[in-house]
Order: sequence, then C-alpha cells, then structure tokens
Amino acid sequence: MEEVVLPTVSRVALCGGTHGNELSGVYLVRERLKRKVEEEEHISVVTVMSNPRAVQQCRRYTETDLNRCFTHATLSGPVTDKTPYEIVRSQELNTLLGPKGSPEAMDLVCDLHNTTANMGLCLIAYSDCDWISLHIYRYLQRQMSDIPVRFIHFDLPLNEAYSLDSVGKHGFAIEIGPQAHGVVRSNILSTMQEGVQQMLEWVRLFNSGTPFEGGKVDVYTMVKNVDYPRDFETRGITAAIHPQLQDRDFCLLRPNDPVFQTFSGETLKYTGTEPLYPFFINECAYYEKGIALSLARQRSVGIPSIRSEREGEQGKRKSSAEEMEEEEEIKGEMEEEGYQKLMEYGEESDSLNGQYK
Amino acid sequence: MEEVVLPTVSRVALCGGTHGNELSGVYLVRERLKRKVEEEEHISVVTVMSNPRAVQQCRRYTETDLNRCFTHATLSGPVTDKTPYEIVRSQELNTLLGPKGSPEAMDLVCDLHNTTANMGLCLIAYSDCDWISLHIYRYLQRQMSDIPVRFIHFDLPLNEAYSLDSVGKHGFAIEIGPQAHGVVRSNILSTMQEGVQQMLEWVRLFNSGTPFEGGKVDVYTMVKNVDYPRDFETRGITAAIHPQLQDRDFCLLRPNDPVFQTFSGETLKYTGTEPLYPFFINECAYYEKGIALSLARQRSVGIPSIRSEREGEQGKRKSSAEEMEEEEEIKGEMEEEGYQKLMEYGEESDSLNGQYK
Repeated sequence: MEEVVLPTVSRVALCGGTHGNELSGVYLVRERLKRKVEEEEHISVVTVMSNPRAVQQCRRYTETDLNRCFTHATLSGPVTDKTPYEIVRSQELNTLLGPKGSPEAMDLVCDLHNTTANMGLCLIAYSDCDWISLHIYRYLQRQMSDIPVRFIHFDLPLNEAYSLDSVGKHGFAIEIGPQAHGVVRSNILSTMQEGVQQMLEWVRLFNSGTPFEGGKVDVYTMVKNVDYPRDFETRGITAAIHPQLQDRDFCLLRPNDPVFQTFSGETLKYTGTEPLYPFFINECAYYEKGIALSLARQRSVGIPSIRSEREGEQGKRKSSAEEMEEEEEIKGEMEEEGYQKLMEYGEESDSLNGQYK
Repeated sequence: MEEVVLPTVSRVALCGGTHGNELSGVYLVRERLKRKVEEEEHISVVTVMSNPRAVQQCRRYTETDLNRCFTHATLSGPVTDKTPYEIVRSQELNTLLGPKGSPEAMDLVCDLHNTTANMGLCLIAYSDCDWISLHIYRYLQRQMSDIPVRFIHFDLPLNEAYSLDSVGKHGFAIEIGPQAHGVVRSNILSTMQEGVQQMLEWVRLFNSGTPFEGGKVDVYTMVKNVDYPRDFETRGITAAIHPQLQDRDFCLLRPNDPVFQTFSGETLKYTGTEPLYPFFINECAYYEKGIALSLARQRSVGIPSIRSEREGEQGKRKSSAEEMEEEEEIKGEMEEEGYQKLMEYGEESDSLNGQYK
C-alpha cells in the first residue's frame, strides 16, 4: 500500500476541564498554564481550560453538558440572555479552536477526561480512518507499556459529532480511569501527563519528517448503550452492575454472562446474541443519561505508512475534500474480510447519539 | 471485671442519604422503605432517608453539610425563611429521632455513609466507652471476615458532636469504601447490607438476654487532619496524595514516609515525629474542607462483659448519668499502661472540630 503524505500538525490544542470534576485534565492544564510552556519545536500548543465555571464549582457542568454542545446545530444556534452558559462557551471555544470544519481550525484538538470506569487509557474519536489519530494511538500503545491503551470509535458524521475534540481537523478525547470524579490520583495524573507528552513527541517526530510505518490496529466501534433495570413507575434503578462485570471493561461479554445484580440479590444476564466488548461500565456521570455500560465490536483496522509533506511538496497537496476521499478509499481497500459496516445494525444504533462522555 | 447490665436496645434508627451522593445507604434505605420491613423481633427499626433533597439531586448536600448540623448549638438555633434547608432538616430529624440527649431519643442511631478512601468498613463514634457500640464493633469484626472492620473514635463531648448518629442514646456511622460518590458498586452495597444485618442480629441477641463476653478491641482515635500543600496566593492545591500512600488507609505512617507528590513531581514526606495511622486518604468530599488525610493513634481498649437487663431488674437500673459515670470508671480501670489521653496533645487537637465525614 502506498505511503500517504499529510500536512504537518502545526497547531495543537490541549484542553482540560471540559467536565469540571474530572481533575486529571484540570490539574494538568492548570500546571501548564502556570508554567507558561514555550512553543514546542515545530508545534504551537494552545492550552485551554474549557469550562472554568464548572471547574470552579468542581461539577461536571453548571447548566448543560458542555461536551454535548459541539454539533453544527448547537454551534450555529442563536444566543440570548437565557442561553445556558455551556452553549455560550461552546461557541467561544469554537471561535478559539475552530471554526469546526474550516481551514482555520486547529490541526489537532486533544481533550482530557476521566472516568470512574476501569478503562485504562482510551482515545475516543469519530473516525476510524483518521491516520493521524490512529498513528498516535499506535505510538501511545507502544510507548506506554504499563497501562492498556485502546481506541474507541463513535461512528457519527462530523456535523453530528458533539464533543469538543470534533472542532479540530484531527481530534480525540483522552479518557483515563478509574478515578472518582472530584478526586485526583497521582498515578492517573502521571499516566495522563505521559500520554500527553508521548502525543506531542509523536507530533514533533511527524512534523520533522519521520516516516511512520503502516500496519494494523484494534479499534472498538460503539454498537449500543445498555441502561440499568428500572422500576416501572418511579424510573429509579433496581440493580447495580454485577460484581462479575464491575471493573471488567474491554473483557468480552458473552450471551448469558451476568450483567446486573438486583438490589434483592437476583442476577440478570446478557440477553444479546453477539459477544461484544463492554466499556464505560458504571460510569458515574451516565446514571443521569440512562447508561449502565456501552458495548463495542472490536475490529482490526489497517493503517497506511505516513509521513509529513516536505517543503515544496505543498503544491502537490490535495484539497481537504480530496484527502478525505482518499482516506475513505484506502480504508475501503484495507477493510478486513468479514467486517460488516456498523450501519447494517440499524436497529442497534438508535441509541448512539449524544451518549458518549 | 464485673459484668455490666444495660437496658435493652429496643428502638433503632437506620439512616441513609445523609449525604445524597453516597449511594449504598441511599439504595439500602430505599429498598427497606419499599419492602415496608415489619418490626423485627424485640426491636422496632425506623428507616429514614435523611436528606431527600440532596438524594434527589445526587449531591452531598444542597446548602450546607447536614452531617455537621447536629451540635446542640445548631439544633437549638432559631429558624427563619433564610435558614439553610439542611439546618431545618436537622431539627426535624432531631424531633423524629431524639431529641438529642433526652430519654425519648432512639436507643441506637446508625447512619450509613460511603467514602472514596480505601477504608473497608468503619464504625465512627464519639465515645470509646459506649459498650453497646464497641460490642457491635467486635461482633461485626468476627462475623465479617472478608473485609477489614475498624472503629474510629472522635473525642468530642456530646454537645459538640455534629453528626446524625449523635442524636441517639448510642450511635455510630457505618462508613464503607472505596466507592466513587454518585456510583453504586454491588460489592460495597452487599457489605453494607451484611453489616446492617449483623448489627440488627447483635441487637436481637442482646435483647433476648444473650451475654457477651468482655475483652479487648483496637480503636483508632483521631489525632489531627492534614491538608494538601497549597499555592500561597491562589490557595489551589499543588500536590496529590503520593502513590505510595494512596489506598493505604490504616497502614502505619512513619516519619519520613512519602505523603504527597507535587504536580511537578517532587515527593513530600511526613514530618511528624510520632508514627500514626492515616485514614480518609484522598476522600473526595474533603477537598473543600482542606483535608487530604486524617491521622489516628491506635489503642487497645478493654470492654466489659455485658448483658441486657431482665424483666424486674429495671428497678435496680441506675440513672443515665450514673451509667455514664460507671462506664467512665470502668474505662479508667481498663486503660492500658502507657496510654496517654488525647487531650494531652492540645496543640494537635485544634483541627478536630467539624471535620469528620
């Protein structure tokens, strides 16, 4: 397969505090802002505290979840005196880091999150054919041997993509757990610091002309969310995640495996027919969203060799639209035999929207 | 040492949701209320959702921390339209379960809590000579072998005791962790359910005349709180609990052991001269209170054999004041050689007030 030449990643945004009680990102960003980090070699890094009001109150958000506000519809909606703070803020951030989908947008937006689930380090993105994100993913996997590194793919078009990282030309959330919201654990903070350093190191190498070989990576594509069992009348939950499933994120869930334990002690089993990979198991912030866990299908995705364009090559560069098309073509070539597109599972994908952290 | 004869424990209050985001107690109480549990043999159990507004919002409290409102001063203060909800609620609960210090008060008040710290199951109380509480503690230790069970003692007089359990004639909090606030983990919920069942079983046995032998128990007496290192100007924290201390609640902390790791990577060590036992390490709710961990001294406390008074013995029973005096005398007899009263450490006890969960 042909080597792909891509523009350098010159402008990077590093964001924390999009959820104000996810403290690793908050403290990492706060420390960087304090130290007034100089421009890195070949990269300009913009450090952003995304939701300072929520950070101040150590809450996920003040009026509405900021990390659901970056759809085209919300970003282009009218603002009045009564518009929730987070919607106003999403438009500010879009001006600062985007505008989303425009040539002025940041080359890479990385948004830092924590989860109460035992997920290790995950990159979460909307594309499984963004070679920059997937190469960074593989680099982190290789450089960070002390923690599992995984890639979660939410299959949504750009205009429906709702989270801050979707504002960049490339982008992903870095999600690390388990960590209670409102708490900072030094091991989780160190992991995040290392993840960020390795990501910037990859960008530095890429920009300086280092070629990166192609190969295959495992990607977890979101299939559906599962809610807690609830009381028919009160809608209160009537069960907790089963002890045999708790903390087992990314361990294959097979038909008839235990999923819930009701408060009266009964075990409820997985009734699906397809074995899938659970993640965001018992995430604190998802109780209000009606999500007890999410389920993904694992796929092996081929990625081409890449390098950054050299001076003088720019003339030969294709337009963004052509690039996207080419990526899709390469992806088509590389798809595994037997891989079925997510959209074939139409009945399972209704619950996809607006539900990832 | 002489056997002590005590009145039966006929009226028990079981409370949850004093902090609305500590979900084990919330769900345990909710389930009991649903099932409309009948009167137990020899015991009347009143089940109470302490702070329904905070439970509704899944927050620790709505206006002020309910579990700091049970001092004599707060309970007897005036109420106006502007009085915080939790203060109004504390007076309602005092009417329902107390009044504190009166003969009408519940015989036993047990209040259910969770912590993000790795504390196992702790009973937390204001007295180290309340034989009922200490015998229940020893019973739980013996019956529940799969989790460490400990007793924490806050040495405050009754009128300064600030938590809900201080409203009963006997009382303690049951504190279980680690569990992220806003999350229910089935293993932690099961442990709490078992703790409550064992406690009620002990009360049943005691009331039916079963004698309980004396002996010794380990008690952790609170010495002082330690705050996070903070920025001199902004007062923001500049360090997290050191990875070598995180999750090591009740493991002896010796002079020069690591306590914090600053966000720039420096290790800060324990500068005290006395080895002490840390607990509530990195408890989420204590960031706002300026507590990174608490430190306790471990002591062996002697407890006498006890049994409940039989019918006809009541005439011989002493007044409450006489009982208290006798307990103090027995405690005096039983104190270990070399045990120094907490109050000798006057300079360390300034920070004791208002700071336990």
